Amino acid sequence: MTHPAIASPSNPRIKAAVRLRDHRERHGTGLTIVDGARELRRALEAGVVVEEAFVHLPFVRTADARAALDRLHDGDVSIVEVSEAAFEKVAFGDRSDGIVAIVRVPGTSLNALRLPPEPLVTVLEGVEKPGNVGAVLRSADGAGADALVIADPRTDIFNPNAIRASLGTIFSVPIGADTTPQVRLWLDTWVPRLIAARPEAEMLPWDVDLTGPVAIVLGNEADGLGTRWAGDDVIGVRIPMRGVADSLNVSIAAAVLLYEARRQRG
Amino acid sequence: MTHPAIASPSNPRIKAAVRLRDHRERHGTGLTIVDGARELRRALEAGVVVEEAFVHLPFVRTADARAALDRLHDGDVSIVEVSEAAFEKVAFGDRSDGIVAIVRVPGTSLNALRLPPEPLVTVLEGVEKPGNVGAVLRSADGAGADALVIADPRTDIFNPNAIRASLGTIFSVPIGADTTPQVRLWLDTWVPRLIAARPEAEMLPWDVDLTGPVAIVLGNEADGLGTRWAGDDVIGVRIPMRGVADSLNVSIAAAVLLYEARRQRG
Repeated sequence: MTHPAIASPSNPRIKAAVRLRDHRERHGTGLTIVDGARELRRALEAGVVVEEAFVHLPFVRTADARAALDRLHDGDVSIVEVSEAAFEKVAFGDRSDGIVAIVRVPGTSLNALRLPPEPLVTVLEGVEKPGNVGAVLRSADGAGADALVIADPRTDIFNPNAIRASLGTIFSVPIGADTTPQVRLWLDTWVPRLIAARPEAEMLPWDVDLTGPVAIVLGNEADGLGTRWAGDDVIGVRIPMRGVADSLNVSIAAAVLLYEARRQRG
Repeated sequence: MTHPAIASPSNPRIKAAVRLRDHRERHGTGLTIVDGARELRRALEAGVVVEEAFVHLPFVRTADARAALDRLHDGDVSIVEVSEAAFEKVAFGDRSDGIVAIVRVPGTSLNALRLPPEPLVTVLEGVEKPGNVGAVLRSADGAGADALVIADPRTDIFNPNAIRASLGTIFSVPIGADTTPQVRLWLDTWVPRLIAARPEAEMLPWDVDLTGPVAIVLGNEADGLGTRWAGDDVIGVRIPMRGVADSLNVSIAAAVLLYEARRQRG
């Protein structure tokens, strides 16, 4: 169904959508904003509930964008055609393939995560930058991780910038989040074998058995991993740093370790 | 030596520095602008010629920043203390550890590259985004690649955003750049074994021998690799994509392939 066009950037629905760029509004409403067709298509494929979509048809040009629009039409979604000015406002100046949508934030309860028999899980502690969350999700998606678990998140996970940086894989990779103690308890039950990336560790990734159920644990760039990941039950691995820099971006470290696991798992 | 402070953001030297944010000005002068202490320290360690440094001392707080400043004092560099307003102007609103410097752009002639006996080289074709150039350099630095060769560059390599994204490794990783035909000629002589990342290739990275002299070739995200990399002398490898996305960021792909080479090379 196509509703009458919104022309004015000051329209209340446009303003309500723009407010979702602020994390407090996302927290209060349980909604977030998805920019771009590929991202929205992946949200739809994952069964995410779309509340409303704003479309500026002259910007809808790619196959991805048309596919997302077709899929919105098939569902029971309110599609609102808007003027270029209104679209620029809601899309924060980005063209976003002509589509911006408001969706319900998916749940991130650890108890809702369903894992296969020999899971490969990524654990990320204390990450602050939404772009890093998104980039780690892209690595996890590519390498076929079964879940991303976020311990002590310092950003709201479904931040629009995380959604964008993930290219929409944020909707397809199962995600759980909780405090670090709760995450450790959950891991004790479900994935007790922990491999932590630590610059001072002795073993290299290819010296460690990464087959079977395994959780690869990464800290944030500034602080590394907290002391709760230092026990005898945690195996440290060091990604060799052969140049002048002393660390890799967390999404690069995740990819190197997850693809090494992928290699070993055949 | 410490020159008298510049107070005004309209000072001609501040304005001249700001103009270097524009690629035409960088091209015309052979200069570029380095933001941040870590980046500048790595430039100094690599012997890059610093023309002038702008410092706002109240922002110089980290050990990295003080080390860079000490090193500037030791060299014959004009250090200009500037006001907060002038610094904000030259640093584009970023605090940059209180230091921004103007440096000579290093040469990128292929003929000047010196390689060890069994080099591991990264080749990047047609990359457009400075941030991607910088991120690939960080991967190349970490994995210990002996050089980055850029074929048909579509951005000026020493773009300030590339410098920043590389964390300054742009100054320590040897870089060559030329047209794709010239790069192919150079590779024929120096690193004839070419491994190209292609989504449609059959072999996986760990099925291919990455020891000995080897060049790992990556295209840009939009177009992939051009036809000049399709010959019988090029071995294609595919990084498995197990999720919903069909590609990794080029810096992630570079890291996965380079660290697989590092693993094989022991």
